[in-house]
Amino acid sequence: MSLYTLDKIHRLLAGARMEETPFLLLDENRLRENARRFKAAFPGGRIFFSVKANNHPQVLRLFAEEGIDFDVASWGEIEYLAAIGIPAERMIFSAPTKIPRHIEQAYRFGVRVFAFDSALEVEKLARLAPGSLLMARMAVDNEGSFWPLERKFGIQPDEALHLFDTAVKLGLKPYGLTFHVGSQNSDPLAWVRALERLHPLWQTLEQKGSPLACINIGGGFPSQFDQPVPPVDEIAAQILRRWQGWFGKRAQLWVEPGRGLVGEAGIMVTSVINRARRNGQEWLYVDTGVFHGLIEGLEMFHFPYNVLSEKQDETLIPYTLSGPTCDSADVIRSEVLLPASLTLGDRLYIFPAGAYTNSLEQYNGIPFPPVILTGVKAEVSV
Amino acid sequence: MSLYTLDKIHRLLAGARMEETPFLLLDENRLRENARRFKAAFPGGRIFFSVKANNHPQVLRLFAEEGIDFDVASWGEIEYLAAIGIPAERMIFSAPTKIPRHIEQAYRFGVRVFAFDSALEVEKLARLAPGSLLMARMAVDNEGSFWPLERKFGIQPDEALHLFDTAVKLGLKPYGLTFHVGSQNSDPLAWVRALERLHPLWQTLEQKGSPLACINIGGGFPSQFDQPVPPVDEIAAQILRRWQGWFGKRAQLWVEPGRGLVGEAGIMVTSVINRARRNGQEWLYVDTGVFHGLIEGLEMFHFPYNVLSEKQDETLIPYTLSGPTCDSADVIRSEVLLPASLTLGDRLYIFPAGAYTNSLEQYNGIPFPPVILTGVKAEVSV
Repeated sequence: MSLYTLDKIHRLLAGARMEETPFLLLDENRLRENARRFKAAFPGGRIFFSVKANNHPQVLRLFAEEGIDFDVASWGEIEYLAAIGIPAERMIFSAPTKIPRHIEQAYRFGVRVFAFDSALEVEKLARLAPGSLLMARMAVDNEGSFWPLERKFGIQPDEALHLFDTAVKLGLKPYGLTFHVGSQNSDPLAWVRALERLHPLWQTLEQKGSPLACINIGGGFPSQFDQPVPPVDEIAAQILRRWQGWFGKRAQLWVEPGRGLVGEAGIMVTSVINRARRNGQEWLYVDTGVFHGLIEGLEMFHFPYNVLSEKQDETLIPYTLSGPTCDSADVIRSEVLLPASLTLGDRLYIFPAGAYTNSLEQYNGIPFPPVILTGVKAEVSV
Repeated sequence: MSLYTLDKIHRLLAGARMEETPFLLLDENRLRENARRFKAAFPGGRIFFSVKANNHPQVLRLFAEEGIDFDVASWGEIEYLAAIGIPAERMIFSAPTKIPRHIEQAYRFGVRVFAFDSALEVEKLARLAPGSLLMARMAVDNEGSFWPLERKFGIQPDEALHLFDTAVKLGLKPYGLTFHVGSQNSDPLAWVRALERLHPLWQTLEQKGSPLACINIGGGFPSQFDQPVPPVDEIAAQILRRWQGWFGKRAQLWVEPGRGLVGEAGIMVTSVINRARRNGQEWLYVDTGVFHGLIEGLEMFHFPYNVLSEKQDETLIPYTLSGPTCDSADVIRSEVLLPASLTLGDRLYIFPAGAYTNSLEQYNGIPFPPVILTGVKAEVSV
């Protein structure tokens, strides 16, 4: 069953009072529902929203009201949260590689929980965030994930042991383990396999007399693109069943959803701005694309967005759905079946679009580098 | 030979008075030199800078001073130019697919030359830019190009004839042909082949008594990544040699460089923020990446940026050079040879970075869609 019906979209649009496309429509009720589902699925756990998935102030405020805490990737994301009154105690800095001045600023603001996955990061944290609580970002397999994240981040258990030792010597406090099973993971056992892998390390630390306070099972909770996905309570049930035996109440369970909390709540509302037949293919151009919100449509990511048309009862034909820029990479989805009669001004609804859309404007809360023009006058050679 | 030596970079940095990385350093002299080289290479031609490659006001002002005109992709890009006093007569709207209200706004501002490559676009232009001058965007082969653009745009000669007829009936004026041999094209014959292909169409129109005023040979002029590339005068020489026989003075030659004018003038100045060994590979993390300017490093584009270190006389080892975000797609270049001793705070210079870097913040002059939150209260189901 489709994530959204036309009927449901029309009711949401009635509340939006917005005529001119493109715009990103977020369903407040669904956001709230998602927050409550996550809280209910992990009783006694602590839920941190990954701000990188959606940094809109109203989204952040709504989650804060629902008792959700926050995972940040930069000082910029801390500023978004501070601007709406969220205190530092409700934030953890889970990016394992941090820009040094962001650590300084976060620490000064009061953030005390930081992730790491390298010796250099421990050294930076000891210097810039003395006495802080550390989570080791562990390498785990990303099987079942649509967009794996395992290459760039994560350490092995023996490295974690070694780096925790170093951290203690430098005055930092080992606090937890964290991992990520990869973005859009539809296999509940991915989290279970990760926990199974980390359990011996956790036991070793407990036996050494330095037990960890928490295990952060990260994000990766999927949204419905072209396939149904398991709901959070189903994934949680699988995790909790094993959790009892391995960690019980001796570790607090932390969860860090991004897409899982916001993905399905968003619909990109677009209009057709052109159409053409090229080399036997039908091309359809709309007024926003991969460089303006729908980046996950890029060929290399290839998330299969759902596309719904206002026109319903007609012959369907395959289109290459493309954005408005001059770049041939600006293709949102190829081979998408839509009504044959689509033309200028027809509306298309693209979803799920609540995650990694508006936040890409300043991804991870990091601005574009400033531009400096300079010339060495003596060298003008023309 | 490398595009930049450390010595040259140091001289540029002395003029920049900027300590904190990351920043994008643009060499004013090189920009000016590039402008003069293009003007000299195409005497009697008209050079339009593709604003989409770099929209910094100082860059635009410098080119305007040098007698370069402008190719725009949106109303947003017209606004950048208008803000620094460039009149509409110096702009052409070469994006073949335009957002309808951008056509209206451009026309009201005074822009009169527009590209098209579909029947719907002709219809839009007749309605929103009555009486305007039209360039047909032609499909040509993109062989020799590092990033081909041919699938999404361009029509065949018979379609152009047909659509020009339609345009005349709707009160528009056929004015020229335009094409693009693909981004970063190192084969001068790519332009020659395109012109050879368009010559019969051009002749047909001349014989019909409706000669075209210009042929726009587009952009695609390459910058030096890891390989030497032919300079613009060499490419121009090849083009002009055939141009004489095919078009002579009966058509004006237009050129539309983006990367060719700005690419080599830019250096991204970054610092190492982390380093780690993972699965036998050395990872190096710097403070900007593919989501903040260096998008062409993305695996699917895979432009082989040059990377220069302050450390010079040491053993080199291969690194995976990565940006600061939590996304595993944020890899700038894999297998890049750099000094083995690189560590926290070491500077790396990445180039050419003058094209498609800062302009990606609002690519093609198009902003991110606004975000609207809405709820249908009766439906809260939790």
